[in-house]
Amino acid sequence: MDTELRDLLFSVKNGDTSVDEALLKLKKQPYIDIGFAKIDMHRKLRTGQAEMIYGAGKTAEQISGILTAMKENGQDRVIITRLSEDKADEVAKEHEIRYVKNASIAVMGDMPEPDGTGKIVIATGGTSDIPVAEEAAITAEMLGNEVVRLYDVGVAGLHRMLDHLDELMTATVIIAIAGMEGALASVIGGVAECPVIAVPTSVGYGASFGGVSALLSMLNSCASGVSVVNIDNGFGAGFLANRINHIKGAK
Amino acid sequence: MDTELRDLLFSVKNGDTSVDEALLKLKKQPYIDIGFAKIDMHRKLRTGQAEMIYGAGKTAEQISGILTAMKENGQDRVIITRLSEDKADEVAKEHEIRYVKNASIAVMGDMPEPDGTGKIVIATGGTSDIPVAEEAAITAEMLGNEVVRLYDVGVAGLHRMLDHLDELMTATVIIAIAGMEGALASVIGGVAECPVIAVPTSVGYGASFGGVSALLSMLNSCASGVSVVNIDNGFGAGFLANRINHIKGAK
Amino acid sequence: MDTELRDLLFSVKNGDTSVDEALLKLKKQPYIDIGFAKIDMHRKLRTGQAEMIYGAGKTAEQISGILTAMKENGQDRVIITRLSEDKADEVAKEHEIRYVKNASIAVMGDMPEPDGTGKIVIATGGTSDIPVAEEAAITAEMLGNEVVRLYDVGVAGLHRMLDHLDELMTATVIIAIAGMEGALASVIGGVAECPVIAVPTSVGYGASFGGVSALLSMLNSCASGVSVVNIDNGFGAGFLANRINHIKGAK
Amino acid sequence: MDTELRDLLFSVKNGDTSVDEALLKLKKQPYIDIGFAKIDMHRKLRTGQAEMIYGAGKTAEQISGILTAMKENGQDRVIITRLSEDKADEVAKEHEIRYVKNASIAVMGDMPEPDGTGKIVIATGGTSDIPVAEEAAITAEMLGNEVVRLYDVGVAGLHRMLDHLDELMTATVIIAIAGMEGALASVIGGVAECPVIAVPTSVGYGASFGGVSALLSMLNSCASGVSVVNIDNGFGAGFLANRINHIKGAK
Amino acid sequence: MDTELRDLLFSVKNGDTSVDEALLKLKKQPYIDIGFAKIDMHRKLRTGQAEMIYGAGKTAEQISGILTAMKENGQDRVIITRLSEDKADEVAKEHEIRYVKNASIAVMGDMPEPDGTGKIVIATGGTSDIPVAEEAAITAEMLGNEVVRLYDVGVAGLHRMLDHLDELMTATVIIAIAGMEGALASVIGGVAECPVIAVPTSVGYGASFGGVSALLSMLNSCASGVSVVNIDNGFGAGFLANRINHIKGAK
Amino acid sequence: MDTELRDLLFSVKNGDTSVDEALLKLKKQPYIDIGFAKIDMHRKLRTGQAEMIYGAGKTAEQISGILTAMKENGQDRVIITRLSEDKADEVAKEHEIRYVKNASIAVMGDMPEPDGTGKIVIATGGTSDIPVAEEAAITAEMLGNEVVRLYDVGVAGLHRMLDHLDELMTATVIIAIAGMEGALASVIGGVAECPVIAVPTSVGYGASFGGVSALLSMLNSCASGVSVVNIDNGFGAGFLANRINHIKGAK
Amino acid sequence: MDTELRDLLFSVKNGDTSVDEALLKLKKQPYIDIGFAKIDMHRKLRTGQAEMIYGAGKTAEQISGILTAMKENGQDRVIITRLSEDKADEVAKEHEIRYVKNASIAVMGDMPEPDGTGKIVIATGGTSDIPVAEEAAITAEMLGNEVVRLYDVGVAGLHRMLDHLDELMTATVIIAIAGMEGALASVIGGVAECPVIAVPTSVGYGASFGGVSALLSMLNSCASGVSVVNIDNGFGAGFLANRINHIKGAK
Amino acid sequence: MDTELRDLLFSVKNGDTSVDEALLKLKKQPYIDIGFAKIDMHRKLRTGQAEMIYGAGKTAEQISGILTAMKENGQDRVIITRLSEDKADEVAKEHEIRYVKNASIAVMGDMPEPDGTGKIVIATGGTSDIPVAEEAAITAEMLGNEVVRLYDVGVAGLHRMLDHLDELMTATVIIAIAGMEGALASVIGGVAECPVIAVPTSVGYGASFGGVSALLSMLNSCASGVSVVNIDNGFGAGFLANRINHIKGAK
Repeated sequence: MDTELRDLLFSVKNGDTSVDEALLKLKKQPYIDIGFAKIDMHRKLRTGQAEMIYGAGKTAEQISGILTAMKENGQDRVIITRLSEDKADEVAKEHEIRYVKNASIAVMGDMPEPDGTGKIVIATGGTSDIPVAEEAAITAEMLGNEVVRLYDVGVAGLHRMLDHLDELMTATVIIAIAGMEGALASVIGGVAECPVIAVPTSVGYGASFGGVSALLSMLNSCASGVSVVNIDNGFGAGFLANRINHIKGAK
Repeated sequence: MDTELRDLLFSVKNGDTSVDEALLKLKKQPYIDIGFAKIDMHRKLRTGQAEMIYGAGKTAEQISGILTAMKENGQDRVIITRLSEDKADEVAKEHEIRYVKNASIAVMGDMPEPDGTGKIVIATGGTSDIPVAEEAAITAEMLGNEVVRLYDVGVAGLHRMLDHLDELMTATVIIAIAGMEGALASVIGGVAECPVIAVPTSVGYGASFGGVSALLSMLNSCASGVSVVNIDNGFGAGFLANRINHIKGAK
Repeated sequence: MDTELRDLLFSVKNGDTSVDEALLKLKKQPYIDIGFAKIDMHRKLRTGQAEMIYGAGKTAEQISGILTAMKENGQDRVIITRLSEDKADEVAKEHEIRYVKNASIAVMGDMPEPDGTGKIVIATGGTSDIPVAEEAAITAEMLGNEVVRLYDVGVAGLHRMLDHLDELMTATVIIAIAGMEGALASVIGGVAECPVIAVPTSVGYGASFGGVSALLSMLNSCASGVSVVNIDNGFGAGFLANRINHIKGAK
Repeated sequence: MDTELRDLLFSVKNGDTSVDEALLKLKKQPYIDIGFAKIDMHRKLRTGQAEMIYGAGKTAEQISGILTAMKENGQDRVIITRLSEDKADEVAKEHEIRYVKNASIAVMGDMPEPDGTGKIVIATGGTSDIPVAEEAAITAEMLGNEVVRLYDVGVAGLHRMLDHLDELMTATVIIAIAGMEGALASVIGGVAECPVIAVPTSVGYGASFGGVSALLSMLNSCASGVSVVNIDNGFGAGFLANRINHIKGAK
Repeated sequence: MDTELRDLLFSVKNGDTSVDEALLKLKKQPYIDIGFAKIDMHRKLRTGQAEMIYGAGKTAEQISGILTAMKENGQDRVIITRLSEDKADEVAKEHEIRYVKNASIAVMGDMPEPDGTGKIVIATGGTSDIPVAEEAAITAEMLGNEVVRLYDVGVAGLHRMLDHLDELMTATVIIAIAGMEGALASVIGGVAECPVIAVPTSVGYGASFGGVSALLSMLNSCASGVSVVNIDNGFGAGFLANRINHIKGAK
Repeated sequence: MDTELRDLLFSVKNGDTSVDEALLKLKKQPYIDIGFAKIDMHRKLRTGQAEMIYGAGKTAEQISGILTAMKENGQDRVIITRLSEDKADEVAKEHEIRYVKNASIAVMGDMPEPDGTGKIVIATGGTSDIPVAEEAAITAEMLGNEVVRLYDVGVAGLHRMLDHLDELMTATVIIAIAGMEGALASVIGGVAECPVIAVPTSVGYGASFGGVSALLSMLNSCASGVSVVNIDNGFGAGFLANRINHIKGAK
Repeated sequence: MDTELRDLLFSVKNGDTSVDEALLKLKKQPYIDIGFAKIDMHRKLRTGQAEMIYGAGKTAEQISGILTAMKENGQDRVIITRLSEDKADEVAKEHEIRYVKNASIAVMGDMPEPDGTGKIVIATGGTSDIPVAEEAAITAEMLGNEVVRLYDVGVAGLHRMLDHLDELMTATVIIAIAGMEGALASVIGGVAECPVIAVPTSVGYGASFGGVSALLSMLNSCASGVSVVNIDNGFGAGFLANRINHIKGAK
Repeated sequence: MDTELRDLLFSVKNGDTSVDEALLKLKKQPYIDIGFAKIDMHRKLRTGQAEMIYGAGKTAEQISGILTAMKENGQDRVIITRLSEDKADEVAKEHEIRYVKNASIAVMGDMPEPDGTGKIVIATGGTSDIPVAEEAAITAEMLGNEVVRLYDVGVAGLHRMLDHLDELMTATVIIAIAGMEGALASVIGGVAECPVIAVPTSVGYGASFGGVSALLSMLNSCASGVSVVNIDNGFGAGFLANRINHIKGAK
């Protein structure tokens, strides 16, 4: 930043850039304002990487508008999370998207080639956690990662997890997704040697309190190397896993 | 009860029992009132089984008084839980008790011979859970049970628990004691085939909230056959395990 | 386990088992993987005992698929809990099941002969707790237990419970089910001499917080011998009661 | 109030009262301002009834000052609640007070003759609840009530309470005091026919959360006729019981 | 009870009562068992007083059945609380009931003459609290009490409450009903000289947490003489107010 | 008040006012009682300022009735908050109102000229917070304030907020509205030099707990000069901002 | 900001400022870094206004160091909040400070002349709230405000508050401080016509939960114009009141 | 694992390994059992990497014992976290350790050369967060990482953080540590392009609830790429950051 600033100032001094141009550059907004939203355009993305839209609080019209603005700015690979089927149908009338129903996710553009350090393993405690897992998986894939899915390997049947020890031992990063008591994160954290991202899900009943029980369990994990994202936040886990799997310069 | 009542009434009719005697019998208090406490004397105990005193809310004098009353009523095997060392010293001046410091427990009378169905296995997640485990263990032993201790077998090092699979598989009842995220109960519940009593402990920090995290985790266990007692309630677990280990008439 | 392993190794040494066969045996999955679920098949069940499916997070198709897989593996007695009437109708098109509406439970196969140590008494505080009680009762019956139902014996009318003291005194294990303030567990725990499994229900309003009030009440029970399962977890209570009622070798 | 006001206005009109005198009367403060506190003097007390000081947040000097001001205004019967022994000693140097240590309460002046409708029964679940009970008892007695103490009659030994059914059935108002799961209030509420004031206490451990478990239990009581005051609020219960026991004009 | 028992025993001794008759009397159930419910019939009601049915967890058929059983046992004045309009219509086909929609309450039989000590004042903070207030009011009226309604006198407009000081000052018991911050109870408690029953309501939004804010506020009231019932529990408040307003022997 | 009272008393003394007239004046209700509600009419409003109706707990008929009563008393500028579209349509049949759907607000009468000290800036973290923001904005505008809207300037894209530093630096009062982690209030509080009113919104999922996370975040803001209103309470924020923007006599 | 930036750029262009000087200016840190802390020096303070130090998490040495740094930068009027007496004594050895024990606050420099719009009224519910009130009062006074103290005017004795209606009606801003049920804020909010800052205090016991009850009560206030700061945050209230009382340009 | 197992089996078949030796190998415990603890020795550590001891629940003797056992097994670089000064002094008598008081951490052995991918930046909101930060920093350093400390850069003075944008932009992984409202994590997450580990601290008062407010804030961060560890868990953050900074094979 220093360098850019210094260059700009020199260029002003030299007369190469007028004061007003410099002012403009310094103030230039790295986002597009389309009225109801300000779309960030400032991230230096790896080529072909997908941009995200959080679909939950937006109308189909708003989402379509954002997609249009993105395309006009050269972004043709987009993930839309938390999108209901109804809205997806509506958006699909104007944009070419693929909708993955059980993950409530839509994607525009095709899947990029994986270019990460290694593999992201996504494990779930039960079948009911699969929607959250798919949100994480598709997010990670659209950002250029190879994903290995290990579903329904919860600790009530420990052998089901132990059966996949080698996948777990060779992962670059693991996403452990579980509801109820969320013990999966601790058990995986106990055997894994890579970063583990724990995702509590709202699966459960009674004193599971919509995922709070699993959340607390994961935060208190006796295994080191485990961190936690918000309840049901598959997207967040997939996004973070991508960052870890794309760290530059690792030996 | 019916029978007793009918017998009593017939005996009144026959003149074998006077009305006042019958009245007395019907009202007779199955406890001793020593002023500051009403000591239950009504349980039909197995011969030699220990009676309990909850020491926490009582002064040394009160505990001594209760012990005296118990001895006078023929009870010479007593467990006193949640007893501070100070109070124990005080009580020891009047009664012959043995104090187990790291479990804050005192016992009067010697250990009975085990006469239960099988063995009670007590497993802890870590070293810090040992005081609660010892409260459970001594309680169970004083009630006539053989106890197997498996301490520090938490899920962060899964192999430590797997190493003791045979003890776990041959137990009559297991007490799983853990703080932090309490995953031990689920993992043991997943491999065991007997009743599992889970005891959350207040071991942990931050969002463990004095045992609430472990408590919720255990209540939401995805493994069947697990039930839960109060946080740090080693006595309750030992007492219940004794009941399960002394069920009459099992085939 | 040791023995099995030693035998296997000797059999490899002797050439009776090839290395690959041994490898296979050591790795053989004790579950069937049918894509969306991994069905456990490893429990050594008593003859005729029922297997369970948790219906809540599964589609009718998934449940049908699991039933088919189970039948193909020789399991023809199954309990499906938390099953809506709609899904039950759907499943009934492919499988012969009986649906018990007020317990949201379906069973495949007929009721086995009771073969437990004694009787399981199931008591509820009110009429609204009956669905949870029936989930517990049917579970226990399908697992081979005799069940005695004592419904609507809450502490607001203490005489209603006292009227059934003999059932309570002769039970092998009692399941105490109550919402609101959950005092039933303590009162029953105070008179019973067998293990008591307390089930808090979400019955109540205002500060009952969907069962939390009853849950806390039961965890803090001043009566010993009481343990607790999750809110509304009738299945868990029935399953655990079965384990207690089937302990081997009791005198 | 109307009448007083009308009279005052007529008296102004008639010249019997000057405008300034009227103004003064209308504004006259029904309390004494002694700098650090404003002592209420406006309640029309029954003759000889005690006034209260909440001792917890006040220094010994402040309490002494308030006592002095009260005595100067003709109030010579006072209850000081939540008073530590240290402060009591300090206050005792200037005022004649009696200190009841296990209730952390001090009284100035002698006990008045009971003049209520009937008796106030105060029942506790255990021995540890006695301090709260004594706070309630002494408060009620100093306000002119006959108090019957039933201590240690908790539901874990139901017979202990049933033994005192007649006291409970003939009370004008019952104060039910219990910690842990607080079931005493429901059980007493189920048999009593008078108002029941439930007082949760902070007695308990683990998930009793300093009285919250008992509080919730009591609020959710399935028995009608039960209301609740704050945790450990013996004074409030005694004060309210006095009001109920002194209702005027009851038939 | 003593006396009754002694008489019965003498009568057995004298041969006036056979053993089996005595047994029957001793065991006679003070409730009617109609299968799905056990209807209490043991309360010695004042002549003409209403019996209660809690409608929430019952079907229209169950309620009709209970009404029939009650009528057959001579009870023709009944209150049914928490009754939806649908169920009320259904019940109305078989029984003559009046339905009060905004209180979700139905009554069978006509209103009795008030025969209490004085008046019950019911005050609400706002208009939204009226349904809870009406549940309290109708309950109290059906139990034989005169009720004064002071609705919408919340503390945001203090003058509205001050305007009714005389009603508040002459009440035998006050029911203070409020949601949001529940300050009404404290303010009324500060001016009243009779027992105040506080009812928190679930009226409010955001951090009112369905009545928890008002509940806590009322429990912590700085005014003495205030006790609290469960959130939205108008029935409980009306029932308790009736008990206070019918205390026997007050001077 | 003193003065008014003194004048009134003198006027009674002088015979200018009769005792009954004085009494009437002293008791005169500063509200209109229209049965189901008591409408405050006592505030000395600035000319043309709007009166408020909280629409949530009221029927369309009740709202219409209140509007009619208000108009009859000379109030022709009214804001109705929390009004569903259905009710708005109903009310619109009788009164000329404008309905702003995305703020669930209706206004009667036209917008007054701004007459405040300066400008009120309303900033939101995201698009989903806009309904709450509009409730605040319209409230403030109807009370006579100039409002500047800065929507979607959340801290995830810090540059979006920094871009509007000058609006923030020159505001008289800022309303910071955000859900999720509510960091916007702290960041704005860190740069602003005027009072900041923070409004947590229920926007978010998982552990946002319906706005509790944002609420706690805002209460704990490390920036000084920030205070908080209830979750989603746009009206309260707009009302308070108006008061701050209309303080009299500022230099 | 724009202007400053433009000027700077022109000055670079003109050669009046070298590139490196400009760079320096653009990056110049508006704080002093003294190792363990970064002291803000960027606020444009009104002449003579005090700077703040939050004493709680700092050692006496650190505080002394910060004071020295401040004095060297020309700031000789400082408030140190949450300062224990011990640390104050320590700091007093190096700096001339006055310590106000019951507010745990120390001030350096003398009190400035009040220069605000009007008066800040600070009201407390009880005597125990005075420490928080004094923290607010001294903060406000050191920032140049006239403060009116109304202590012990809680709603349990409503007349005590009504007695001070004129102070409340003529305030520019009111700080309402209360623990327990926190109703004071609502009652004051109901009569006041200026902004009200509510401060919940941790005064209370039982279900007051260290101020949470008062906090919720204040957030849910039915009175408009009330906002809330953190529990016991007297400083925050005083600081905010100062900002409101110093708004520029009010008419 | 497959391979190892297959090799072992072949070696049994070939007679190279006896059955008992194979059995031993299969069961060999990857930990040392020293009575009160089971010390894990199974992790394949990078050369020279430190092993950890959690000091909180252990006596000085236990810690010394574990250190001795570790040294005997060739581990001479150890971190002991949560170690009080007293215990450290005790341990120092037997082992050469360095104690860092403000982080409550002790290290045995010297600091290894950093061998990670890049730098770990550790930022704190305030000075009070430094102990947690140092726990993270020393942990990371002892595991072979270069650490950059940015302390006291909280959002209340946004410029302090913006001043260090380049450090933040060039980090491999950032640890953001903050108490109170925890906004630092969101703001850093909004500008950073690497994984961000958020650590809530228990710094704060009132409604910060010992770190819960910061925890919720961080879990709900509107910025992507942020995950959270337990309150005050500096060690966990340092350990995880090390894993991320040592991912093998990154491009």
